Amino acid sequence: MNDISNKNTQDTITIAILLYDNVVLQDFAGPIEVFDKAQNLTKGKYKTFTVGLKSKEIHTENNHLKIIADYTLDNFPKSDYIIIPGASMSVIKELIKDESLTSFIKKENVSPKIKIVSVCTASYLLANAGILDGKKATTHYFVADDFEKRFPKIQLVRNVRFVDEEKIITSSGVTSGIDAALHIVGRHSGEMIQGMINRALQYTYGQNETWPVAPQGMRYRSEKQTN
Amino acid sequence: MNDISNKNTQDTITIAILLYDNVVLQDFAGPIEVFDKAQNLTKGKYKTFTVGLKSKEIHTENNHLKIIADYTLDNFPKSDYIIIPGASMSVIKELIKDESLTSFIKKENVSPKIKIVSVCTASYLLANAGILDGKKATTHYFVADDFEKRFPKIQLVRNVRFVDEEKIITSSGVTSGIDAALHIVGRHSGEMIQGMINRALQYTYGQNETWPVAPQGMRYRSEKQTN
Repeated sequence: MNDISNKNTQDTITIAILLYDNVVLQDFAGPIEVFDKAQNLTKGKYKTFTVGLKSKEIHTENNHLKIIADYTLDNFPKSDYIIIPGASMSVIKELIKDESLTSFIKKENVSPKIKIVSVCTASYLLANAGILDGKKATTHYFVADDFEKRFPKIQLVRNVRFVDEEKIITSSGVTSGIDAALHIVGRHSGEMIQGMINRALQYTYGQNETWPVAPQGMRYRSEKQTN
Repeated sequence: MNDISNKNTQDTITIAILLYDNVVLQDFAGPIEVFDKAQNLTKGKYKTFTVGLKSKEIHTENNHLKIIADYTLDNFPKSDYIIIPGASMSVIKELIKDESLTSFIKKENVSPKIKIVSVCTASYLLANAGILDGKKATTHYFVADDFEKRFPKIQLVRNVRFVDEEKIITSSGVTSGIDAALHIVGRHSGEMIQGMINRALQYTYGQNETWPVAPQGMRYRSEKQTN
């Protein structure tokens, strides 16, 4: 709530949040909230904007929220981080077929300065683009078995909120996007600012967390159509 | 992710989310996400919509997200729950002066079927309307001392994620709106559905939680202008 400036003079960090129809609201709202608080606490070091995949008008999952994104994929400003939130597996399956998204992810990954962050099932989009091959990654624990089977070149990490492979950060289910964002703020602004945001959100930040085996009926299998 | 119908045949539960300019995104995104998952799991028992206080176009805190609300205060459908998310104290101070909001809260509270839920600093709006007098309530721990001093007729409860006074539910800081929403789903659909949403969000639901005394510089005092 207060303005407490960051002692380190550093460049602005720009964060693009990719939005698309049927995206899960909490997957991107958590990171935006963290970077918003970080912006307040650092006198504007963090700049976040939203980018619509196909158009500026975005409807979140089940049509719950109609959002007007700041930019589209064609015209968004250069950014340091690209955050890709998740969706239900039926939506992710459709996005995997979208060549423009796959080539966008590949292209952004080539740039040495850009970091890509997935939340929840969006790890499938990165995996599908091949940019996680040979790396460690995580995803929602409901889909972890399927992910591991489908992408044998990726080393799946379980029981973590996020995996940081420097250039690519993958986070696990839904609210773990908050932890990944807090991790990024910690990297650039230190533990004090990170802790202040943690307390401002009344959230308990953490990287390691054990989840049970996904319960029967909630476990995703690629051969089964789920929504 | 799956459709698991609720065994109890019950009426639809309609939830209005009140939005206004400079509202904190996470305060309402968490509850929407919970009710969205509840809707999936109960074959549509939960119906959530957004209501703009002054207009349909809403800009969240720091202008991060532009949202088009479903309704405005003048024309929104009858609802069982009205969720009021919070904002920074400077925004709350302005909202307290808004007679139309205060009389709206008072009027809705008179209706015996309507339940009002505040997230974070929105407890000030309910307290200001007088509907919490003689009741227990909570708010963000940063502002708890100020709240207690300002509203001596309300019994402040610390170290909880939410307080349920049947007709009014108040929750503490930002992410605790998720817990309040999970509590509501538990009330209407039972612990199994509540637990499934908990796991789907990879979130750890809880009511009791100890927070330290708000750190110096983060503690809100009404005489000091904070943002």
